[in-house]
Amino acid sequence: MKETYIKEIEKPELRNPVLIEGLPGMGMVGRIAARFLIKELGARRFAELYSPHFPYYVLVNKKGSVRLVRAEFFFWRNSAIERDLVFLTGDSQAQTIEGQYDVADKILEFAAKLGIKVIITIGGYRKEADDPPKVVAVSTNQALLENALQGNAVASPAGNPIVGTAGLLLGLSKFRKIDALCLLGETHGYLQDPDAAKGVLQVLQTMLKLQVDLKGLDVQIEKSKEIAGRMREIEERRERYAQKMRKTEEKRMTYIS
Amino acid sequence: MKETYIKEIEKPELRNPVLIEGLPGMGMVGRIAARFLIKELGARRFAELYSPHFPYYVLVNKKGSVRLVRAEFFFWRNSAIERDLVFLTGDSQAQTIEGQYDVADKILEFAAKLGIKVIITIGGYRKEADDPPKVVAVSTNQALLENALQGNAVASPAGNPIVGTAGLLLGLSKFRKIDALCLLGETHGYLQDPDAAKGVLQVLQTMLKLQVDLKGLDVQIEKSKEIAGRMREIEERRERYAQKMRKTEEKRMTYIS
Amino acid sequence: MKETYIKEIEKPELRNPVLIEGLPGMGMVGRIAARFLIKELGARRFAELYSPHFPYYVLVNKKGSVRLVRAEFFFWRNSAIERDLVFLTGDSQAQTIEGQYDVADKILEFAAKLGIKVIITIGGYRKEADDPPKVVAVSTNQALLENALQGNAVASPAGNPIVGTAGLLLGLSKFRKIDALCLLGETHGYLQDPDAAKGVLQVLQTMLKLQVDLKGLDVQIEKSKEIAGRMREIEERRERYAQKMRKTEEKRMTYIS
Amino acid sequence: MKETYIKEIEKPELRNPVLIEGLPGMGMVGRIAARFLIKELGARRFAELYSPHFPYYVLVNKKGSVRLVRAEFFFWRNSAIERDLVFLTGDSQAQTIEGQYDVADKILEFAAKLGIKVIITIGGYRKEADDPPKVVAVSTNQALLENALQGNAVASPAGNPIVGTAGLLLGLSKFRKIDALCLLGETHGYLQDPDAAKGVLQVLQTMLKLQVDLKGLDVQIEKSKEIAGRMREIEERRERYAQKMRKTEEKRMTYIS
Repeated sequence: MKETYIKEIEKPELRNPVLIEGLPGMGMVGRIAARFLIKELGARRFAELYSPHFPYYVLVNKKGSVRLVRAEFFFWRNSAIERDLVFLTGDSQAQTIEGQYDVADKILEFAAKLGIKVIITIGGYRKEADDPPKVVAVSTNQALLENALQGNAVASPAGNPIVGTAGLLLGLSKFRKIDALCLLGETHGYLQDPDAAKGVLQVLQTMLKLQVDLKGLDVQIEKSKEIAGRMREIEERRERYAQKMRKTEEKRMTYIS
Repeated sequence: MKETYIKEIEKPELRNPVLIEGLPGMGMVGRIAARFLIKELGARRFAELYSPHFPYYVLVNKKGSVRLVRAEFFFWRNSAIERDLVFLTGDSQAQTIEGQYDVADKILEFAAKLGIKVIITIGGYRKEADDPPKVVAVSTNQALLENALQGNAVASPAGNPIVGTAGLLLGLSKFRKIDALCLLGETHGYLQDPDAAKGVLQVLQTMLKLQVDLKGLDVQIEKSKEIAGRMREIEERRERYAQKMRKTEEKRMTYIS
Repeated sequence: MKETYIKEIEKPELRNPVLIEGLPGMGMVGRIAARFLIKELGARRFAELYSPHFPYYVLVNKKGSVRLVRAEFFFWRNSAIERDLVFLTGDSQAQTIEGQYDVADKILEFAAKLGIKVIITIGGYRKEADDPPKVVAVSTNQALLENALQGNAVASPAGNPIVGTAGLLLGLSKFRKIDALCLLGETHGYLQDPDAAKGVLQVLQTMLKLQVDLKGLDVQIEKSKEIAGRMREIEERRERYAQKMRKTEEKRMTYIS
Repeated sequence: MKETYIKEIEKPELRNPVLIEGLPGMGMVGRIAARFLIKELGARRFAELYSPHFPYYVLVNKKGSVRLVRAEFFFWRNSAIERDLVFLTGDSQAQTIEGQYDVADKILEFAAKLGIKVIITIGGYRKEADDPPKVVAVSTNQALLENALQGNAVASPAGNPIVGTAGLLLGLSKFRKIDALCLLGETHGYLQDPDAAKGVLQVLQTMLKLQVDLKGLDVQIEKSKEIAGRMREIEERRERYAQKMRKTEEKRMTYIS
């Protein structure tokens, strides 16, 4: 495989489709959110993206089979309004600089072919404090941004970089006359963060007039909080120990010097 | 050399050929197994693979000559049943992400040209415990996998990545209508591990109805166990020393603080 | 985006244009100088350069919008003499070796298309001492170099490497029959250094017979000196502490051994 | 510059030419040897090689001008016998794996165009002991190797890798029907090693029936020995100090534990 390549399994007719991207990234916010919607809505897989810029390993399936690292496209026919959804999620992002640009470009080329005019990308946003996580929004289109803010997102401060596919899709979408919005769930980012994903999903629901029950995420949230709590404890203990050592060292120096 | 390139020395007519790949990797399991079979069966070299993704050095031969880092194809005419074997082994794997995909692709292209319908790749599988090493199998084809399990391999748990050529050949084989199986010998992986290779060869023998005497490996196994033993001793001593230092440091702190 | 790409917003007729390049680099000297001139002269943006060799993120604008990392071309119509100026500045340089050559090449190709015969690149020059910062000049053209020396620059000692776009534009300009000069402002280089940029601008003013008031830079200079001062203090305290530790350690050894 | 590129300044008619390559590498052995011969014989520059795989900086000349990192070809008309010499030396080797293969390939393509049938590459060979440095030889051609051994070189043990252009030229020469020999001067390799270069030159002189006075190297040798001596002293002092610290630490532990 010399080139990034999209294999179409099915060619669905889509009405006014919106693409929602959630690849792995900080806190796995995008991936958790996209996968949750795919599962709850029963969206259907219709295309796979392979790339020589993805990590060079294969993953073992439950059935003892294997598959390349890949990204996958799903679609969902909206019966309420005439706006079908396309989802993009996967195992990984491209591993090199040039690969990142190439994969984002191939996604946009495919999106254009599907007649997609709006893309929503999902990611994580580094947060320091312990306040309830906000959802930060940026967009290439003012109306789309307004829409997100009405859905309870907050505008991003200037100067922030948005790294990886979630960002590049916005940057490159301008060359394709596609509007794009990025929703970033605030997260500490070391661990899977379903809480941040839930925040993003709440904004998405309002924006897209979806009615998906998000309770299914609460078990995941409980579990991840437990893990985070234990990690923090270990970290704090390690920190106290390191501090003690530093002080002891300083004291000893004072005695001698 | 701008492109990966296969130089054909001879164009053998092959009957129903199976490709067995064993390039360097964890514990050198694949390479040891492939080279042992090549030698014992008297398989014959017929093609060389060169690539600008291989390390940029040459190796000195016994005759004071040199050659590029390369992989080599061998074939063996099976007189018992109508299934010839092709072997692939070599000095190295590709050194970059894109190179890994490219080399695996070129191998598959060549395999398709040779009329190969089944590929068996060999590698190492990280093991922690000290139990006798198992052979772990995954496959793109359920019948092939069954075949390996009957030969005493065990199915791989889900979620495992198989890194490098041994994995990518499976992942990419689907685009070529070639079935593929990967046999991974459990190994600690720091050193050459002929014991793990022997395990894989036992499975292979059963699967392919080969009758190769594996005793020739036992000397290698003895020697590598000896080396491993000595390494372990050094490691343990180092570890005990480090522990002692940590404790001393903690005690000292307790006195002072 | 597979290739570095220049998007032309406007196609100005330029008279005898000179290109002044100031991309991010050591002490941000080039970027500060180019941006200051662009702002003071009211130069006008007319082209954008995008590249898959730039970092793979997007930047958030003040308006909550985003854009790809990019470089930008500006032009300024000179009313005093018939020599218009073109400026090139941006967010980043290319991130890979091959990318650096590629981007520099694309810039030169575009410059040739604009009828540019002279390029002046701006960068930082590592200085050790605390003397007032000099401006170091090198050129592919002896007359241009003389011109810079008359403007109070000093010639560079031999053997120095000039890294990145500021250097490569000179090296590659020879293939395009474009003359090029590089002005390097001496800087410690850890922080933004508007003082070094001012030095370069003074040379540029003389060379190009510009009359731009440089006072606007003085506030920036004050601020950056303050920051540098504070950084230095912290660094010195850290150094004194480390020295003390080393001495203590040596003493203790003397007692015991 | 997207591609490695050779700029021909002059197109000399060469009689039976031999290419001698000496690019920077371990102990700078190849570069010192090639440059010494070029200077002593008065060889003439006739081509330059540029590459996007070279480091992305330019070098400042004595005249305050700059130039890209490059390699250069020189030729020397042999008046004694009908065998002209071509030299290749330069500032650097390619910086990436694929770049190394590409540059070596371009050199061979050019060599073939010049009618070159024999290439001699020069490099350094890591030595541990302090015996007088030997010259190690490997070749793609048995007669060439014999020739070098008669000139007092010794054959290389098997299994050694020869890294970089000096090695790849041998490995890739087979695809071009060019014979190649590599002469490696033993060196400790941290510093410029004119002594190792002298050893290689003595072998070369015998092989090619040259009569160049090598005394000119002796001043360089003296100077580099002095530097090496001083470096060694510093290193030994540092080592003694580190040993002392380790012992002290161990003792202290014994007291406490």
